[in-house]
Formats: sequence, structure tokens, C-alpha cells
Amino acid sequence: MPISVVGYAAASPTSDLAPYSFERRDPKPDDVVIDILYCGVCHSDLHTARNDWGGTQYPNVPGHEIVGRVIEVGGAVTKFKAGDAVGVGCLVDSCRECEPCQHGQENYCESKVFTYSSIDKDGALTQGGYSTKVVVSERFVLKLPEGMDLKGAAPLLCAGITTYSPLRYWGISRGDRVAVTGLGGLGHMAIKIAKAMGAEVTLFSRSPGKEADARRLGADNVVISTDAAAMAKVKGRFSFILDTVPYDHDLNPYIPTLSVDGTLVLVGYLGPLGSPLNTAPLVLERKAVAGSLIGGLPETQEMLDFCGEHNIAADVEMIAMHEINEAYARMLKSDVKYRFVIDMASLKG
Amino acid sequence: MPISVVGYAAASPTSDLAPYSFERRDPKPDDVVIDILYCGVCHSDLHTARNDWGGTQYPNVPGHEIVGRVIEVGGAVTKFKAGDAVGVGCLVDSCRECEPCQHGQENYCESKVFTYSSIDKDGALTQGGYSTKVVVSERFVLKLPEGMDLKGAAPLLCAGITTYSPLRYWGISRGDRVAVTGLGGLGHMAIKIAKAMGAEVTLFSRSPGKEADARRLGADNVVISTDAAAMAKVKGRFSFILDTVPYDHDLNPYIPTLSVDGTLVLVGYLGPLGSPLNTAPLVLERKAVAGSLIGGLPETQEMLDFCGEHNIAADVEMIAMHEINEAYARMLKSDVKYRFVIDMASLKG
Repeated sequence: MPISVVGYAAASPTSDLAPYSFERRDPKPDDVVIDILYCGVCHSDLHTARNDWGGTQYPNVPGHEIVGRVIEVGGAVTKFKAGDAVGVGCLVDSCRECEPCQHGQENYCESKVFTYSSIDKDGALTQGGYSTKVVVSERFVLKLPEGMDLKGAAPLLCAGITTYSPLRYWGISRGDRVAVTGLGGLGHMAIKIAKAMGAEVTLFSRSPGKEADARRLGADNVVISTDAAAMAKVKGRFSFILDTVPYDHDLNPYIPTLSVDGTLVLVGYLGPLGSPLNTAPLVLERKAVAGSLIGGLPETQEMLDFCGEHNIAADVEMIAMHEINEAYARMLKSDVKYRFVIDMASLKG
Repeated sequence: MPISVVGYAAASPTSDLAPYSFERRDPKPDDVVIDILYCGVCHSDLHTARNDWGGTQYPNVPGHEIVGRVIEVGGAVTKFKAGDAVGVGCLVDSCRECEPCQHGQENYCESKVFTYSSIDKDGALTQGGYSTKVVVSERFVLKLPEGMDLKGAAPLLCAGITTYSPLRYWGISRGDRVAVTGLGGLGHMAIKIAKAMGAEVTLFSRSPGKEADARRLGADNVVISTDAAAMAKVKGRFSFILDTVPYDHDLNPYIPTLSVDGTLVLVGYLGPLGSPLNTAPLVLERKAVAGSLIGGLPETQEMLDFCGEHNIAADVEMIAMHEINEAYARMLKSDVKYRFVIDMASLKG
């Protein structure tokens, strides 16, 4: 029998999020029914609700940093039982057959099903975690390590894996020099995770005011990216730059700070580069500009376990569900340290 | 005692190349004196002679695809003896101490000394292979495999290693699907080498007229890059694109033809990309845009040995030294299949 839930949805690109009642599917044998406790607030939520990228399906219940407890499992479920603390990230299904899926890289499956504003395999519109319950196939459910702070865990499901995956793929390990561009939801996770991997971590920031906080999060150095002399001092220093800036920006000043064979990886900005990228420094020192998108399910589990071992969680500011529209306004001003998380008890009361 | 030689030099950015007499250094213990037989004509020669990139030191004797025979060796030389067929490429020295030098990647040394228009360690201006003899430290001299065609070998010293190095660095091997953009001196070598590595090779070309020749060189397929339908058919097909186009061009149409984790490597164009690069396809499928510059000395030897084993040489058009200015004019019209090589006997007569 379908499960009645309450959520907060955008009815159109211009409407505020407002209460919305809908149904989750009748659980299938491989499904896990999750009572949602917390849900992180990602920039993608806002962009999707407002159709900034086009293609949003309304009504749209955002939310893909979901943490909750299992309340029911289908007969074929083997990894979870009622009471387990679990997470759900950006994906709730994929084709499960293609090359990426076979290698646990469901994030690069061409038929992946996003947690919201996506069409599920049964033809239904997916709805996200700004809601009381969710029903997800167990392959797309993550186990939260014992003792992990559940509020701070929610942003790991998107911001955490989005930064962990490229750090792992490009083989960051002890002693590597990593720079992080941008100190927001993604950037603050990037600093914590790169530091826990043993890297020397530098934050590139446009404003000097972020230095103390960056150091508190684990950064060894802060370089003001608009200060040409400071940038010249770190010429050739980094083997890897994780660029979390979510808007168009000039990459050219950062490329010289990469060492030979270094790579700058974008995870925040998807769109045309307004400042013409100069290929000369790429050719002259075999450097690369690349991108990376969230992570696959096995890697997301690995990230959660890594964060559990290293006592890593996001820095969060808790809000009630009805405060979401105000939170969106503050996010647009970067007025959050560093991730809003919705306490879903506020919706159940 | 210094060695008197004759060459062809540009006296200024606007003057034709003309005969020029100068001296090579008195050979040091580790030096090899080479009687130059052939020298390939690279686009860089023309750009340097005309100061297109700035910084050219005049008079400038171009030429960095040098093939010849050893006529004398210094007392400390161990790898060469008089009579050996040898090559010299784009580099004649480097710091020999930095990280890249220690790993045989002299091409990424910050203090590398180019074969021409560069200041050597003794303070002298280097002069290239459009000349009768050259004196080079043995570390920067390559052994030509037994039986290799010496005329066709000359372009391997720049065009060959420039394409071989990225194919090796990015691990191209049997069954990989490689695309090559541009069919000139670099492109025709890229097709031959990638094919010999066992890859399935596709040429991206703007003109249908190149198909027969591309297939003769070893290409399995030719895709007309201005044909949107043809480009759509190869969506996601290539793990690697070697872009040899020597002028500014829009990379965006090529990125979708890369598979997940694919890389497009520029070896021809150094400068700002006039068409804004869209980062979205990089992020969504973890793709990269990178560059690569010639190769290190051990890798250049490896390339020559590889070409010897696989019977690979450049397709060349022989010219006399005095025909160089006409050859430059034809190169600018892409009117050469695929590399001019100067027969230095024409200068010795």
C-alpha cells in the first residue's frame, strides 16, 4: 500500500516552497522505508526548485542529503533492518547494467534516477528529502557508521561525496599539496577530507576574513586569490586543486599554482567559462582541467566509513522546515556556516 | 677549437632565411659532434623565425628535428662513437637536477635549453639544425635504430615524440578508441603511432577530402567534425582525443565524443580559447582537457625504438636548404604531406 507523506514543495519556478502531501510507492521486495530525521540543504535544491537549470518537474520536493532510520524493509532486503541509521544521497536508481554501473559508478550511468525531479523506472516523478518518509531500493541506501552525529552526517551525502570522490580518484594521499577554491558547503568538506587524507591543505579565498575559520576546519594555509604577489609565491605548489566555486570564474590565475602534471577539478560550476581558458600553461607543464560529479554508491559508503573513522561531519546550522525559504535567501548571500540542515521533526509535529 | 659551420638564419622577424656562417663550441668531454644529414621543418621553426610568440633571439637558425652521423666524441662520451646515426630534438640541455630532470622529463624542467633561440648554460645563443654540424651533450643525443630511414626519422624528433608522449602517458593500449584532431605533421604521426599501439583510430577532419589519405596512414574511421549528425553518432566513443590543431578552435563539439573519464589533450595550440569552454560535460562525466609538451629524453629514445620496431617513419617531402622560404609559405597553406625535410647535402655542396 502506498505510504502517505508530507513534504515541502515548489509548485512553480517562482513560488516559495510550501507544505505538500503526496504518496511514496508501495515498498517492493528490495525497498527500504526510511523515516527521515534530517535533510541537508544543497545549492542544487534551490536551483532545481527555481528551474535555474531548466527541466524541473513540478511540484518539486527537493532534498538529497537525507538521514533517517529504517522503519520497514522488503522481503529481499539483506543489508538493512528496522532501526538502522541510514542515508540517501543524490541518486535513487540507475540502469544497473552499463559499464559505469557495473563498476559501482552509478553517478556516471546515463540512465541514473536522481532523488528528486527525475522520472523513476516505474514512471513516477521522484520527490526528495524535504519530507517525512522515503522509499528507496537498498542498493541506493547507505549505512551510517555507528556513533556518527546524524545532523552533521546529512551533508556528507552530497557535499561529502562530491569532494571525497575526486580526492580519491586523483589519488590524494599523505604529503600531497592540495588547494581548495571556495569555502562553502563543498569547500569546508573538501578541507576536512583532504586534511584527513594526510594532505597539506591550502584554501584559496577572495576574502581575508575566512582565514581563521579555514584554519579551524583544518587548512594549513590560506592564500588570497586576488593578491597577485601571494599567488606568485605558490607558483607550482599544488598537485591538485579542488574548485568548489559554484559560479563562473576565471580559472587562469589558478593554473600556474599547479605543479607539473597537476589537475584542477571543478565540482561546483557547470557552464561556459566566461574568461577564455589559456591552453599554454596546460601544454607547457602537462596540466589538466577536469570535472567530477558526486560519487558512486560503493564510494559513498567508503566515504561515510572514512568520515566515521576520522570523526568528520559537516558544520551545520539547524533549521525548521518552514524556515526553508528564508534559508534559501541566506544561501544566496553565502550566509551559512556551512550547511543548513532541516530538522524533520518540525514537519511531523 | 670551435667548429665553423654554415646555416640558414633569420636576421629579423621580417627577413627571409638566408645563408649564415657561425661557430659551434669547442666540444667538451661529454659532447658529441654531429654532421647533420637531414632536418625536419616544424611549425615552431617558422613561428620562432618570425617572432610570432615573442622572445626570439636573432640571428635565429631554426631546426629541431635533426638527424645526422657522429663525427667526433668527447673523452667522457660512453654511448656514441663516430659513424653512429643519431638524432637531436627540441632540447639540448636542462638543469639535470630538478624533479622532472631526475625522472627523465627534461621537457618539463624550468631551465631547459631549447635547440635554438635559447641561452645555453655557457651563455651562448643556441642555433638549430638548419646547418651543417651541431655539438650536443650526449644526454641529449638519441640513437637511431638500425635500418631506420634517416629522412623519415627526422620528424620523429619533434612531431613523433610530441604525439607519442601523451599516448603513452595516458596509457593508450590495444583496443582503446583514440581520436586525432587535425591531419598535419603531428596528426599524421599520431595516427601511425596510435595505430601501432593497437588502438582503434579515428580522424576528426573538417574536410572530407582527407579520408583516403587518413586511412592509408592507418585511421580506421574519419568523422567530419562540422557534420553534427556524424558527431552525434560517435557520442561517448573515445577514451582519448589527441588534438594536434595548431590554431585556436572550439573544443566544445569534441567533448561529448569522449567516454566517461576521457581526456582531450592539446599538443598544437597554445593560447586562449576563443570559444568559451563549457565545464558542464567535464563535470557530468568526469572528463578532462589537458596539454602535453614534446617528451623527455628517455621517452624520446623509447619512441624511436618503438618506431623502429613498427617500421614507422614520417611521410616527408624533401627540399633543398635554399627552398626553405618557399616551404614556409606552403606550410602556412597546409600544402605539405606531411613534413618538409631539408637535405643538408644541399648546403654542403
